[in-house]
Amino acid sequence: MTFLLLGNLPESPSGSFFGHLLVIPMDGSHWMDLKAVAEEIGRRGHQVTVVIPEVSVRMGPGKHYKTLTYPVPYDKERIDSLLSMHMDVLRQSTQSFMEKINSRFSQIKNITSFIHTTAESLLFNASVISHLSQQHFDAVLTDPMYLVLSCSWLHVFLLKSLSGLPTVNLLRVIPCGLDTKSAACPAPPSYVPRFFTKFTDKMNFWQRVINTLVTLTLHCMSSPLSVLSFLSLSTVTFNVLLSKYCGTLYRTDSILDFPRPLMPNMVFVGGISCNIRNPLPQVREAETDSWVSGEHGFVVFTLGTAVSVLPEEITAVLLEAFRQIPQKVIWRYTGPVPDDVPENVKMMEWVPQNELLAHHGVRAFITHAGSHGLYEGLCHAVPMVMMPLGGDQPDNAQRMASRGVGVVLDITTITVETLLQGLNDVINNSSYKESVEKLSAFHKDRPFDPLELSVYWTEFVMRHKGATHLRAAAHDLNWVQYHCLDVLALLATVVLLVVMVTMRCMRLCLRKLSRKRKQD
Amino acid sequence: MTFLLLGNLPESPSGSFFGHLLVIPMDGSHWMDLKAVAEEIGRRGHQVTVVIPEVSVRMGPGKHYKTLTYPVPYDKERIDSLLSMHMDVLRQSTQSFMEKINSRFSQIKNITSFIHTTAESLLFNASVISHLSQQHFDAVLTDPMYLVLSCSWLHVFLLKSLSGLPTVNLLRVIPCGLDTKSAACPAPPSYVPRFFTKFTDKMNFWQRVINTLVTLTLHCMSSPLSVLSFLSLSTVTFNVLLSKYCGTLYRTDSILDFPRPLMPNMVFVGGISCNIRNPLPQVREAETDSWVSGEHGFVVFTLGTAVSVLPEEITAVLLEAFRQIPQKVIWRYTGPVPDDVPENVKMMEWVPQNELLAHHGVRAFITHAGSHGLYEGLCHAVPMVMMPLGGDQPDNAQRMASRGVGVVLDITTITVETLLQGLNDVINNSSYKESVEKLSAFHKDRPFDPLELSVYWTEFVMRHKGATHLRAAAHDLNWVQYHCLDVLALLATVVLLVVMVTMRCMRLCLRKLSRKRKQD
Repeated sequence: MTFLLLGNLPESPSGSFFGHLLVIPMDGSHWMDLKAVAEEIGRRGHQVTVVIPEVSVRMGPGKHYKTLTYPVPYDKERIDSLLSMHMDVLRQSTQSFMEKINSRFSQIKNITSFIHTTAESLLFNASVISHLSQQHFDAVLTDPMYLVLSCSWLHVFLLKSLSGLPTVNLLRVIPCGLDTKSAACPAPPSYVPRFFTKFTDKMNFWQRVINTLVTLTLHCMSSPLSVLSFLSLSTVTFNVLLSKYCGTLYRTDSILDFPRPLMPNMVFVGGISCNIRNPLPQVREAETDSWVSGEHGFVVFTLGTAVSVLPEEITAVLLEAFRQIPQKVIWRYTGPVPDDVPENVKMMEWVPQNELLAHHGVRAFITHAGSHGLYEGLCHAVPMVMMPLGGDQPDNAQRMASRGVGVVLDITTITVETLLQGLNDVINNSSYKESVEKLSAFHKDRPFDPLELSVYWTEFVMRHKGATHLRAAAHDLNWVQYHCLDVLALLATVVLLVVMVTMRCMRLCLRKLSRKRKQD
Repeated sequence: MTFLLLGNLPESPSGSFFGHLLVIPMDGSHWMDLKAVAEEIGRRGHQVTVVIPEVSVRMGPGKHYKTLTYPVPYDKERIDSLLSMHMDVLRQSTQSFMEKINSRFSQIKNITSFIHTTAESLLFNASVISHLSQQHFDAVLTDPMYLVLSCSWLHVFLLKSLSGLPTVNLLRVIPCGLDTKSAACPAPPSYVPRFFTKFTDKMNFWQRVINTLVTLTLHCMSSPLSVLSFLSLSTVTFNVLLSKYCGTLYRTDSILDFPRPLMPNMVFVGGISCNIRNPLPQVREAETDSWVSGEHGFVVFTLGTAVSVLPEEITAVLLEAFRQIPQKVIWRYTGPVPDDVPENVKMMEWVPQNELLAHHGVRAFITHAGSHGLYEGLCHAVPMVMMPLGGDQPDNAQRMASRGVGVVLDITTITVETLLQGLNDVINNSSYKESVEKLSAFHKDRPFDPLELSVYWTEFVMRHKGATHLRAAAHDLNWVQYHCLDVLALLATVVLLVVMVTMRCMRLCLRKLSRKRKQD
């Protein structure tokens, strides 16, 4: 499957310009799109240097870019133990409230501290830093979630060693809204739902109250980030640093997130991973094809990079439900395969998710609602059963469900009945298929392939050493000036004065009149 | 000259889809881009019907679209006399203040009444209307300035006869801001300068005060438009009608207008006319070429479609200034050629403006700062002397001047010295050339040719019968809800209550304490 309306950009749009790009990626699913962009930019003849830790979940070398690795004080086991922490979170149905809070909190703490360690390892590696500063980079391509999660260390690094380099962000969202804030982009809480609320763009009064409160809370939460001062760089805040960014490529669009105001340097590139660029080897395709072919079609079930094993009790529920449906099920699962796997279920350590979703026999997609999976489902118009696990997933899932393309289930409290009901709905109720087909047509009908567009704007920033003409003057205003509060104060004062003077004049006149009458 | 980075879109992006487009254009320079888009859509195999009056300034048949004409109660002379009204406005230096106001006002009144008459002629033409309603159009492409200036008649027409048809606008701007308002697009007055102010995006306190006052005034001015009720269609306001529009193509970009928030259905297509698609016949090119070639190069001087003759006193000043410069001057002028035209000046009834600006010998462009001319100057990186006449031109000129690409002169008070100074500046001070070259590079470096992009989105609306997925939920909110004033009122009440209860509790405690002390 290729994009129906894919525009063909010239291979080297700037003629003879070949630049040098520094890529500071983030691990996990964040790596996927960054890698695709880095590869494509390298393939077009630019020099691309990707800086990654020696040990990571999935980051590694590529065909068209150079990798520069730095040692880190952890090994693969540490990463594996980090990844397996989701097991505690998934066991929430048997946990008390405090245990739930505790397991969530310790998961977040561990991940943040891990990223912090990674960033420190890069920052304090004098030889890598000195090597990088000697390179003449034209731009940096990065995922600013790294910057936010690493609590300012990477910020200092970027600032000290590469100050002045124009930067392109590629991200899904910074949940506290720092991305929107630093782009000076308006986001009215009346119809732009905040993350963690699971609201859509249509909110009732109480939802708007909560959305406004969440906006205020996130604003307060992101403020400490803005004033974090390390190494006496206290005057440069996150906000200022992010606002120096030349542009942000958002792994989303008006379908996953709702239509809302955007600044000219915010570009939607959701769906980079949907375009099948490396089809499966023919043998493998034939093998898969023969298994999935059948009257009732099949269901694809994956829970993303981070989650490939589930607690036994949940696995048992899922298998029992699958046993009762006529469809075959392809399940990405790396743990030990249970004995009682039904005949119609195939548990595989790796599945070609995008290729399977593009198969004509697919009936439904059970997904954790990560943005990559959602876009692949959307692209190939597959109705979805969404079981979000964390991060942006609960909001992603609700947003897609509000569009009528699937149902949302809570994996921690899932039962055979709820899963069967969900699967039955999306497979047999044609409204889900119709909705996803309509949205799919909208999503794919765009002037550009998202990868081409990402590459285009990154190259733009490289060849012009920035994109200053897209920087809004709002960045030069403080909060009072931006909202014209000083102007409103002046106008209110003038109105007040006019009213007071008029009143006094009238009173004087009235008094004189009444005196005159008395005299008469 | 072609766009350096022009993306090649597939000829028929929707495969076998060929639709029917209704085009309701506006006359004058507004016609240029609408015609180009209509022609290109027709060339791609769609059926295109352009509805125009029998008599007009420049609207007429094309190669790839069908025209449907309707009779109007005026002739070519009426149009000519309307166009010559600018002569009164240009004589302002010899007029008193009241005469100035009067000539401006009567010009605006005449133009509005003319457009009104045109719209009425279409609306009350039963045979044309009935013919149109029998066609199965997929979409309407129009310039909503027509709709606004014709004071609701066309609105009624569109609504009654073609209700439900998805609409694409192509416009420069609606000066009262109705376009932004109806798109629910935020435009903070702190850095988004309003038309008629001549401000840039960097305003001091007093400029922000004026910009805010102008915003409020325009808001009030546009409100009566919103409540105009003809033919008992009182419930449907302009605002609602415009908000039903599926998208607006803006003949601008972040260079002519400054970076500001946009909604996803607002697309920038500034510069459609810059791409040379029909080069001059070779004979003519050679003839022009031999005249303009010379050591000092040449200056192009045009004042747009509407103004081709000037009052004698202004013509004399201009000719005297041109006599004193080493450059040759090509001047578009349709009036009687004076006797004392200097040797280096050629006055022609029509000049190939875009082609001349693309010529390597051009040194400066004297323009009235209409958006088409400005984009052609920008595209070919020609420094400009801008002499705005009215409409959006004074603001256009100041915006471009603030970017350092030229100087602004007042044509009504122009002298030989000021013009010579202006020409000398832009020709000999390299900063103007450098600025325009930099901006030109930014302007031309974009993923799409603006004509292709206009055609793409128009076709999009045709094939999907709209673009509902780009419609912001803000349209469903009223003013109080949009600004969350109800939410803020609730939160303020809660805070007030909490403070009051706390105060009362504290007072009670204090009282008890003091009583106890007294008892002790």
